[in-house]
Amino acid sequence: MMSGMKRKKNLVIAHGGGPTAVINASLYGAVSQAQKAGCFGKILGAVHGINGVFSEHFIDLTDLDSGTLNLLLRTPSSAIGSCRRKLTDEDYPVLLEILERNNVGYFIYNGGNDSMDTCYKMAELAKKTSYDLVVAGIPKTIDNDLGYTDHCPGYGSAARFLAANIRDLRCEERALPIYPMIIETMGRNAGWLTAAASMAQIGGRPCADLIYLPEYAYDEEKFLSDIDNALRTSPVLVVVVSEGFSRADGKPIADTGFVDGFGHSVPGGTAQALAQIVHEKLGIQTRYEKLGLVGRASGIWQSPVDRDEAAEAGKRAVQLLQEGISGYMVTILRKGRDIYEAEYGTVELEKVANFERKFPLEWINETHNGINEAFLKYAKPLIGEDFSPYVDFGIDCL
Amino acid sequence: MMSGMKRKKNLVIAHGGGPTAVINASLYGAVSQAQKAGCFGKILGAVHGINGVFSEHFIDLTDLDSGTLNLLLRTPSSAIGSCRRKLTDEDYPVLLEILERNNVGYFIYNGGNDSMDTCYKMAELAKKTSYDLVVAGIPKTIDNDLGYTDHCPGYGSAARFLAANIRDLRCEERALPIYPMIIETMGRNAGWLTAAASMAQIGGRPCADLIYLPEYAYDEEKFLSDIDNALRTSPVLVVVVSEGFSRADGKPIADTGFVDGFGHSVPGGTAQALAQIVHEKLGIQTRYEKLGLVGRASGIWQSPVDRDEAAEAGKRAVQLLQEGISGYMVTILRKGRDIYEAEYGTVELEKVANFERKFPLEWINETHNGINEAFLKYAKPLIGEDFSPYVDFGIDCL
Repeated sequence: MMSGMKRKKNLVIAHGGGPTAVINASLYGAVSQAQKAGCFGKILGAVHGINGVFSEHFIDLTDLDSGTLNLLLRTPSSAIGSCRRKLTDEDYPVLLEILERNNVGYFIYNGGNDSMDTCYKMAELAKKTSYDLVVAGIPKTIDNDLGYTDHCPGYGSAARFLAANIRDLRCEERALPIYPMIIETMGRNAGWLTAAASMAQIGGRPCADLIYLPEYAYDEEKFLSDIDNALRTSPVLVVVVSEGFSRADGKPIADTGFVDGFGHSVPGGTAQALAQIVHEKLGIQTRYEKLGLVGRASGIWQSPVDRDEAAEAGKRAVQLLQEGISGYMVTILRKGRDIYEAEYGTVELEKVANFERKFPLEWINETHNGINEAFLKYAKPLIGEDFSPYVDFGIDCL
Repeated sequence: MMSGMKRKKNLVIAHGGGPTAVINASLYGAVSQAQKAGCFGKILGAVHGINGVFSEHFIDLTDLDSGTLNLLLRTPSSAIGSCRRKLTDEDYPVLLEILERNNVGYFIYNGGNDSMDTCYKMAELAKKTSYDLVVAGIPKTIDNDLGYTDHCPGYGSAARFLAANIRDLRCEERALPIYPMIIETMGRNAGWLTAAASMAQIGGRPCADLIYLPEYAYDEEKFLSDIDNALRTSPVLVVVVSEGFSRADGKPIADTGFVDGFGHSVPGGTAQALAQIVHEKLGIQTRYEKLGLVGRASGIWQSPVDRDEAAEAGKRAVQLLQEGISGYMVTILRKGRDIYEAEYGTVELEKVANFERKFPLEWINETHNGINEAFLKYAKPLIGEDFSPYVDFGIDCL
């Protein structure tokens, strides 16, 4: 590869899909490393993801001051913007033409399955057309369903938010147990995020009495009998359901009727629908709560571990570009056995694209309404330090 | 009054109505002071409010260790439990009989309007029947609608939660502005809590573009035109509505169909209903969010000012009892003019019972979709120290 007098190529960083609490931490890691590397021309943030490339709308981060860089670490959601846009076959040549016109030689996509697919196809077309484009992916999803990585940046913080908020809602429920509480979580079709409810504990006792993941279908009779049985022991009852908890035929219990930019139907309303069913069938009024979008955008509930790993993944993606290695996503692997320690690897974008990693069924209890200890062992190190303890006078058990 | 050889009378503390993030801080203040005072027999927490008195179910807090006492300060919701129970005329004699039988000479009710009414009626009946019962009230409501006090413990923390979460949701919305966002808040029929949305700011710019309080009726044409106009300038749009935002005839925009223990209908579903109206009438898909019950039970979003004042109010209620002053609720008044400083007073329970303090209409803007500066001046000191700053690349305005 000739260099020397050649003009340095620019680096574009884009965010794809739903933001997380630490996606900007990855941006921090990538920009810091790129500034240090000195081999890039401009460092450009694409405004609102791939849309910003099409509209040639970039934020110049080349000389971003260290004060703002440090604020990025703590700012949730994407500070440069993201998008949900499924590219058509016709879009790719246009995209590459724009990048080439802007002297872009390096491209980083920070996103989930769909983004890795886009990134892979860009790399493939670039190769075919002999356009020297080096691409890398940074994993990101609160759903934790990307393959070939132990977990994804974004998951730890969303899990921490969930566990902490379910703990607070347990305090509300034990204080005023006039009605049982049904709490809906995000997480789409995989149970990773919902399972984090099992980490909500007060004095070692679980805050969620019943947890339903999308991995096992909704069985109305069983669900109602679970609730009926639980209420025989205590009026304090917290039920957690995934937004993706669905009927045996795959149909959601509730449907918002909305679709996202990829044509995926927007899930939601599950807790509300279940509250209605419980009211009709058991004659029991319930309170339903949805821990909504703020669960992936909460600054205060950033997991310190997650934030550090997100920053490191951003740094490593830039290091791949520095070495001229194209077509890989950074992965996070678990090094330590007893004490948690992360190490980093890579996986081909092609492999990771469009692959959905399933929640291990053996981590779900036999009655399909709770989570086993193996999950806690996996997830606890990812949500960061323990929560401050709460008083427990044992009024749940009355 | 003879004392000397007389057995010390017991003190009962009960919580009424919806819990707050700092109701236990008041319990901390009351118990600490009562322990110091030395003039009380047992210090008893009624389990699940007045219900605990009826069932003679008390937690003995007389010798509560300082470690647990300190944890109370940080534990949200009621650690001894609360209830919603409207007493009948027949209940009061029974209640007093139980208290007398348990050698109770002092009673503190920590609650809102309904609780102060209950407390007042207990004091009145005790007087009539020559039962020497000294009662006091501690104010508590996230709705901030108790009279004769500048504000209520619980409000500052709920307002802090709201402002912080709307700021995070703004980050989500500016990152992925595929659809405008409609956020519903608690606060019932008064705008106090919803107005706190105006304190959500990034770099001095407000995070909520449109704010609708219950003080002005929902006008569909105006509401839709507000949204339509806002979207002409930017696709990033955050609309905040109170759960109590209602039609001109007083009917809610949505109705859960549920009622609480006092027969008040449970509000909710307003954002969802408005999202449907916007979709039908403007053809615009929106994302709706409800900042639900965790908003009054969030440990991490406790306002330090609110926590301190809640503890002080608890302490002062016990001091009233020590002085033998019966029938008053502690109030918080604003001493400083420019720099915020609280001082404490009292108000007769009779006055404060069943009174709803209205949100000042002059704090609402002329177009009834925003909040004036005067509110910010009032509320900012109550939510505590500033939030950590977030990066702002100005992508909202594109």
